Amino acid sequence: MICAGPIITLTTDFGDADGYVGAVKGVIYSICAEARVIDIAHHIAPQNVGQAALTLEAAVAYYPPGTVHLAVVDPGVGTARRRIAVVTDSAYLVGPDNGIFSLVFRRQPPQRIIAIENKKLMLPGPATTFDGRDIFAPAAAYLANGLDPAELGPEIDDPIALDWPENIRDENEIIGAVVNIDRFGNLVTSIRGEDLPEDVVSFVVRIKDRQIKGPSLSYYDNDATETSDICKAVFGSSGYLEISRPGDSASELLSARCGEAVQVNWKDRNDNRSRQ
Amino acid sequence: MICAGPIITLTTDFGDADGYVGAVKGVIYSICAEARVIDIAHHIAPQNVGQAALTLEAAVAYYPPGTVHLAVVDPGVGTARRRIAVVTDSAYLVGPDNGIFSLVFRRQPPQRIIAIENKKLMLPGPATTFDGRDIFAPAAAYLANGLDPAELGPEIDDPIALDWPENIRDENEIIGAVVNIDRFGNLVTSIRGEDLPEDVVSFVVRIKDRQIKGPSLSYYDNDATETSDICKAVFGSSGYLEISRPGDSASELLSARCGEAVQVNWKDRNDNRSRQ
Amino acid sequence: MICAGPIITLTTDFGDADGYVGAVKGVIYSICAEARVIDIAHHIAPQNVGQAALTLEAAVAYYPPGTVHLAVVDPGVGTARRRIAVVTDSAYLVGPDNGIFSLVFRRQPPQRIIAIENKKLMLPGPATTFDGRDIFAPAAAYLANGLDPAELGPEIDDPIALDWPENIRDENEIIGAVVNIDRFGNLVTSIRGEDLPEDVVSFVVRIKDRQIKGPSLSYYDNDATETSDICKAVFGSSGYLEISRPGDSASELLSARCGEAVQVNWKDRNDNRSRQ
Repeated sequence: MICAGPIITLTTDFGDADGYVGAVKGVIYSICAEARVIDIAHHIAPQNVGQAALTLEAAVAYYPPGTVHLAVVDPGVGTARRRIAVVTDSAYLVGPDNGIFSLVFRRQPPQRIIAIENKKLMLPGPATTFDGRDIFAPAAAYLANGLDPAELGPEIDDPIALDWPENIRDENEIIGAVVNIDRFGNLVTSIRGEDLPEDVVSFVVRIKDRQIKGPSLSYYDNDATETSDICKAVFGSSGYLEISRPGDSASELLSARCGEAVQVNWKDRNDNRSRQ
Repeated sequence: MICAGPIITLTTDFGDADGYVGAVKGVIYSICAEARVIDIAHHIAPQNVGQAALTLEAAVAYYPPGTVHLAVVDPGVGTARRRIAVVTDSAYLVGPDNGIFSLVFRRQPPQRIIAIENKKLMLPGPATTFDGRDIFAPAAAYLANGLDPAELGPEIDDPIALDWPENIRDENEIIGAVVNIDRFGNLVTSIRGEDLPEDVVSFVVRIKDRQIKGPSLSYYDNDATETSDICKAVFGSSGYLEISRPGDSASELLSARCGEAVQVNWKDRNDNRSRQ
Repeated sequence: MICAGPIITLTTDFGDADGYVGAVKGVIYSICAEARVIDIAHHIAPQNVGQAALTLEAAVAYYPPGTVHLAVVDPGVGTARRRIAVVTDSAYLVGPDNGIFSLVFRRQPPQRIIAIENKKLMLPGPATTFDGRDIFAPAAAYLANGLDPAELGPEIDDPIALDWPENIRDENEIIGAVVNIDRFGNLVTSIRGEDLPEDVVSFVVRIKDRQIKGPSLSYYDNDATETSDICKAVFGSSGYLEISRPGDSASELLSARCGEAVQVNWKDRNDNRSRQ
């Protein structure tokens, strides 16, 4: 017998100093006694839906089938925005309908999207300011208990898409933007390895006044002549191109923020080389 | 069979960079092998007992009966202040006797309060600087194991009350103070919905040089003319009146801190209206 | 029957805003379905191996036998540095071979140290930038499942030692350094209680332009004349001498940082006293 309750993960911007996270967990355990509630992240920048979407994309794929992922970064709480529960081939996703799951959908297309409307499955007299506690946590816990998602409400087919930069692509270049800055100061861009032609073997990244040759295979630099103002272009662990700085923050060095333009140019291609 | 060990929650100001939280959890699991230790909050501002009290009030009510809540924000560690274990009708509370549970008591009056004194139930040779690890964690774990609370020490009836602002109330107004600033920059005040007469339908809040009409039902503002310096008065998810700013920090906008005075005035009452 | 899966603790510098922690946990649960993953700390200062070593030393000793401790503060990820799994008499330790476990070894000497090399026990096609997810998390989960550590790779006997200040000791003094500043602003030094002669009953600590008499038994000061610029010398809960300031940050008061020199001088000894 496997002695392990259902897993419900949490991704929020609630921080770790107020009672929000604690209340959500309490509601879940009160409904699903055997749950194992797992913290993914609670310091998403307040109301930064894009950062939450990246975090979910980086984590969700690694969980066992049947996991319930509850995500609450919800600037629209208290408005008419919908609340959704999503069924994919290996997970349930519960949260506001604001694009927070858009990046997960690239890897796990939604099979069904339900608008959560069944008041019997919400806390009695839900407040207007805390759907995480009153509506999303119960929905996640009931799903973990085996509830048929159809009980939550009607199916919809027009989820809100994430407000996300669209890369501009040409034959020899792609232009994107910085979409996140991680804790190490790495600049995560909107450009993924799969966005480049397969036969590209090297490229030059332009950001602000810098030109950086890539790709490098690690954040670290063995080069003895390395100085503290070197930048590297690395495909990070979720497949996004990142600008990093060995042992320090690229974000600080470049004074770069989210939204900063990033251009990638390539000439060398495998097939060219093999012909020469 | 339900496969779920007892729940012990943690609320501390230990942060997330040192070994304090890890040591407390280790002690609990070593005594109560089946425990499920749940993080409520570890970034309570250092030694801010009031913030911890609010956090506990917001969270404790949502946990299943029998949950053990361990709270350690303890500026007096190493002094003669008592350590207590509290029995309410649905939970155990364990922590220093400094008012940290005062706000929980409003909703769950204490049935028994025990001074933790039984050295046999502490770690051997407890240090003088870390009661969380040496005394509170064992007490919580033994309670989760089913220990009779009377084993911990003698009953007391004079717990320390929280140092908390007392609202001044008049026929048409109530004066309180900002008691917390949450991660979103919302100013949480000492004034609760139940502190106003039931028939009040609208009011004006004064804080610093602002007048804010209330109550609003959500933090968000649909109003197209909305500008970034608008404030709203919302009853938050724990019932406290909050000053918020749509999509941004009210605290920054108003340069307001904890302790800031807040005045609520009302004229409109339901019964007046119905007579007119 | 005890209904409790194996415990795997996490100590990282991943923070709480990206998907790194979430991915690591997902991998563990996918391999070891019954695991209980416990957060020790995720806000170790980026790439600060020494702080992680102190955190582990403070926490590991309190966990039940058989616990697996996964620690990832890994500035060398992607380089040739080894990855290790360590067997002690009561725990497994998994992480980079960079000294992160050196302080734990003082209390739990390693019985076997294995270089993790078996690619069959890594995620397929591991990235070069995230060994925490691709290599360390699987290793920890397989060990929790009962894997023979020898399956992970060959045994080694030359683990990297932590870069750690060595105290200079004389007959009546010891000179060390500040090695960590905790969340309360306490200055944790490299000098431990056991580094002083057993019969020393009092001493004077010099740091920057201060002289502080010690030891004090608590961070708090009952003295009514106490002012805010008093410092105390306390042996903290892990045995290290700490410079603290009652109710406030010693680090701020002294503008002291890690690496700051600390000198301890003593005259009074028990045996001298008893003779006089």
